[in-house]
Amino acid sequence: MTVGSQQSLFMLVQLLLDQQSVLGLEEPGYVDVRNIASLHKCQLKSLAIDKQGLVVDDQLNECDLIYTTPSHQCPTTVTMPIERRYELLRKASQEDFLIIEDDYESETNFDSKPNPALKSLDESDRVIYIGSLSKTLAPGLRLGYVVASERLIEEARALRRLMIRHPASNNQRAAALFLERGYHDALVMNIARNYQVRWRAMNEALTQHLPGCHETPSFGGSCYWVRGPEGLDAGVLKHRAAEESIFIEPGTIHFYGADGLSDHVPKNYFRLGFSSISTDRIEPGIKKLAAIIHELCPDTF
Amino acid sequence: MTVGSQQSLFMLVQLLLDQQSVLGLEEPGYVDVRNIASLHKCQLKSLAIDKQGLVVDDQLNECDLIYTTPSHQCPTTVTMPIERRYELLRKASQEDFLIIEDDYESETNFDSKPNPALKSLDESDRVIYIGSLSKTLAPGLRLGYVVASERLIEEARALRRLMIRHPASNNQRAAALFLERGYHDALVMNIARNYQVRWRAMNEALTQHLPGCHETPSFGGSCYWVRGPEGLDAGVLKHRAAEESIFIEPGTIHFYGADGLSDHVPKNYFRLGFSSISTDRIEPGIKKLAAIIHELCPDTF
Repeated sequence: MTVGSQQSLFMLVQLLLDQQSVLGLEEPGYVDVRNIASLHKCQLKSLAIDKQGLVVDDQLNECDLIYTTPSHQCPTTVTMPIERRYELLRKASQEDFLIIEDDYESETNFDSKPNPALKSLDESDRVIYIGSLSKTLAPGLRLGYVVASERLIEEARALRRLMIRHPASNNQRAAALFLERGYHDALVMNIARNYQVRWRAMNEALTQHLPGCHETPSFGGSCYWVRGPEGLDAGVLKHRAAEESIFIEPGTIHFYGADGLSDHVPKNYFRLGFSSISTDRIEPGIKKLAAIIHELCPDTF
Repeated sequence: MTVGSQQSLFMLVQLLLDQQSVLGLEEPGYVDVRNIASLHKCQLKSLAIDKQGLVVDDQLNECDLIYTTPSHQCPTTVTMPIERRYELLRKASQEDFLIIEDDYESETNFDSKPNPALKSLDESDRVIYIGSLSKTLAPGLRLGYVVASERLIEEARALRRLMIRHPASNNQRAAALFLERGYHDALVMNIARNYQVRWRAMNEALTQHLPGCHETPSFGGSCYWVRGPEGLDAGVLKHRAAEESIFIEPGTIHFYGADGLSDHVPKNYFRLGFSSISTDRIEPGIKKLAAIIHELCPDTF
């Protein structure tokens, strides 16, 4: 048990990597892994993704450790199919690297059955599985977990002891009872039911008002990753949309170049979360957002 | 706010020290600071203490950072008088070092008014004050805090974000209300009243059954630091005492040499906590313990 996935990642980077190690990160990918890795001064390698998630080819060869989000790639939400999962595991054995599988939003697959986790297919202890209760129960409880080999967990326990002793024990106890009695399963079903309705409404509204801008098929998650027209600056869009009470997340921070090392970061991507918006407000919001984009980039559509 | 003093110390060591830095530690002293520092590979220097806590003389000159427990020195429980506090602050300015003041058990001074914290006397931002709710409210909540200059807190916030995001917010909220409404003050008064009775009973029983073995004057705390006769091995005593349902903590882990680098660690010290024992069981327990010591070291008393 950890103080959320954040601490799981912090500890794994500290335990597994040194300044000579190469950590492979999906591009675009989860920004905080990159921030944690920067603190520990290991080598970073950006890894290409496509509509099936992380691309498994020779780009992985130099890596010592790979961070991946196969359930719903963060931030694009694409899901890695079973065939590629097997490929990735074979590659890990061939090239002798380890994998951190962040099972981000595995609970919210609406259009297909969830694929088995990499960890469940792993026969050579190469996969370190991390998860949390932040996306389902409550982020404020700060409860995450790591599933890995006994030897690694032993080292992680020792480091956790020095860092924080342990996550709040009242929250661990409450969550244990919540899980044990089946309330979490019921909660996840409830969330999935609600998200699915909003996810469909989002899909319809995006298809209608911003055609061609979002990835299909997507299987779920709690957000859509949208590619605005070339020339759109999502940072500018964010401010204009906020004036209309629409909140978006510009996509630039998910690209590796965003730390200022590169000018080649696309600025036209943004992310739309739908976990906290009622269904009837989705279509009017997307319609307004499309109007603003049209205003900012009058030559599109 | 931190996940307990453990995290405060972990972050401060990470932020303030590199491999060239010298961290001064009281000897005997709080073992986990040493463990954290070992992980970060800075230089360690053992600092002598006496009946007024940390000795302020040229032993401090080479240090970049000093960790001290002036309220009740850990583990000996001695309290640093006001004159020495001023001396220490002067020395810090002269020799240009920083001080971590761990205000361990400041709430439990029974025989004298609490001395002002070093931090409250500090006019040159050299003192970093840390505390927690673990010794009063509950260790399981994992709530600690750091009081320091704005610049340092800003850096600590950034590191905390990467390590854990934040301590559990439900516990922060509950503790804030508990403090705001005065319940914590009432709790501390209650604790002090109960501890004081046990602390007196301990003092009387130790004076009667193990004369000359504990430090006086002591002003409070939640334990006694006992020097057994020369030739006593507190590790052996621990096991013999456990057979009689008496639990003691051998003192060796509080000495720097305990990691195996030195054979000069005294084995005859041990610590007796009294925060969880009812008063009427204290005298019979000490009497039994004294009998076991007598059995192990027949030539004493």
